[in-house]
Amino acid sequence: MDWLFLVGTAAFSVSGYLLGVKKRFDMLGVLIVALLTAIGGGVIRDVLLNRIPIIFFDASSVWVICAALLASWAVSLHKVYGATMHRVFIVADSVGLIAFSLAGADLGIDYGFNLFGVLFVGFVTAIGGGIVRDMMVNDVPFILHKDVYGTVSILVAGLLYAAHGQGWQGPAVVWGLFSLGLAIRLVAHWRDFRLPQV
Amino acid sequence: MDWLFLVGTAAFSVSGYLLGVKKRFDMLGVLIVALLTAIGGGVIRDVLLNRIPIIFFDASSVWVICAALLASWAVSLHKVYGATMHRVFIVADSVGLIAFSLAGADLGIDYGFNLFGVLFVGFVTAIGGGIVRDMMVNDVPFILHKDVYGTVSILVAGLLYAAHGQGWQGPAVVWGLFSLGLAIRLVAHWRDFRLPQV
Amino acid sequence: MDWLFLVGTAAFSVSGYLLGVKKRFDMLGVLIVALLTAIGGGVIRDVLLNRIPIIFFDASSVWVICAALLASWAVSLHKVYGATMHRVFIVADSVGLIAFSLAGADLGIDYGFNLFGVLFVGFVTAIGGGIVRDMMVNDVPFILHKDVYGTVSILVAGLLYAAHGQGWQGPAVVWGLFSLGLAIRLVAHWRDFRLPQV
Repeated sequence: MDWLFLVGTAAFSVSGYLLGVKKRFDMLGVLIVALLTAIGGGVIRDVLLNRIPIIFFDASSVWVICAALLASWAVSLHKVYGATMHRVFIVADSVGLIAFSLAGADLGIDYGFNLFGVLFVGFVTAIGGGIVRDMMVNDVPFILHKDVYGTVSILVAGLLYAAHGQGWQGPAVVWGLFSLGLAIRLVAHWRDFRLPQV
Repeated sequence: MDWLFLVGTAAFSVSGYLLGVKKRFDMLGVLIVALLTAIGGGVIRDVLLNRIPIIFFDASSVWVICAALLASWAVSLHKVYGATMHRVFIVADSVGLIAFSLAGADLGIDYGFNLFGVLFVGFVTAIGGGIVRDMMVNDVPFILHKDVYGTVSILVAGLLYAAHGQGWQGPAVVWGLFSLGLAIRLVAHWRDFRLPQV
Repeated sequence: MDWLFLVGTAAFSVSGYLLGVKKRFDMLGVLIVALLTAIGGGVIRDVLLNRIPIIFFDASSVWVICAALLASWAVSLHKVYGATMHRVFIVADSVGLIAFSLAGADLGIDYGFNLFGVLFVGFVTAIGGGIVRDMMVNDVPFILHKDVYGTVSILVAGLLYAAHGQGWQGPAVVWGLFSLGLAIRLVAHWRDFRLPQV
């Protein structure tokens, strides 16, 4: 699971970086938006699990974020324009979404939560950072009106819970669900698939 | 107190449902807005009380919410237009407000908080979900500029605290305060009564 | 450190009062905005430190806030217009910012957090209330695009951490850093100094 968490952290750093650049924030603003996106969900998760955020004692995620931001800056990701930038943003954001949903759901299973608790912790870990970020930059959080963003988070967390109930565990299950979730999310985005309105 | 909590949960589900429909969110968006409105305050309350949210172990509130949403959908509440819809929204929201204020304040009293703590926990339980909801859909939370919304929450919580100090407890006190609060809120709304500006 | 906390609480009450008046909220709205600004950061800090907010047991901050609000009202601070009002707001907000950053960072050091944790707790204590306030009134939190607001918080917290590592402690260090931070913040504001954009 630790690899999953690192992958998600790096991916959300990149998506936060792109959003901050697009909104024309100053350097600290970009750094904060990237940090919030990458660690916000994890801090909220730790608060819900009633423990002091791990990152206050073990700063390894911060190094991952800094490395991802430096790499983004080094390859001049902020100079990529228009459609390409949007595509990079969507892929990075989707990778972070699925990775954090699975990592969060796994923690919820460890804590012995019911299905609702597992889905909630996976959802909050994956989407908490992004929602705080979107609220701060004053967008309607895009989970509320775009694609099948939240649905995919709930779907992979639910499948992980079901698999656990069947006694299926281990890296193969996790990476299988990761690939499945990512495929669904990206196909749904490019086909502009939406859930029906009530 | 448990009945109070169920009543509040059902009422806030309905108000969240109506808001999500009005904002034209997709089905998951409506579900999330309704869930946030109905359980957001309770989760924030549990975080403040330094415990893991009860709903992660005991999902009975989720069933109440699902039942309320199904009922709303079954009676086609989303097809009611204009003034009637607004009226249903205000009544449901007011019931949730008063019920959750009293349930939260009661918990604060159990924890031995001072008056400020009791008012705060009642307020957050009642209004936390709605504020998160309003911030997510990018409205100025309407507690800040409408009617006597927050005042009523503080009033009933303060009266419950005072009654407790006098040794008055039990269902009669609670339902008396519930009726009083609901009456004040609805009369204030229809008379368009507002607190004076500074 | 307690004096620092009281100074910050009073300063943020005044800045919240001015913001609420400027936005034309009713009396309760002004009170809530002032309370959130003054205690929001502290409550979020206590949640992160995994403890029940101290203010629920010890209400002394509430009296400080009420006194600051009454004093603001008594000297008719809400009738001061335009540039002068803005100047009072900036000074009060800056005093609160620096005082809370140092008080928060000091707590993080006591808890044995790493540098990131100390900066984060200082930052959240200082800025949490303001961010919640700005999000509630639907502004883009001004830390994200103005002056060197957040930078100063991080700077003084980092210097306090470094000083602690050197064994330098006590009031002289704290008040020295307080003066330094306030000077940087105010000079930066009036010179309209900004961090470079990426």
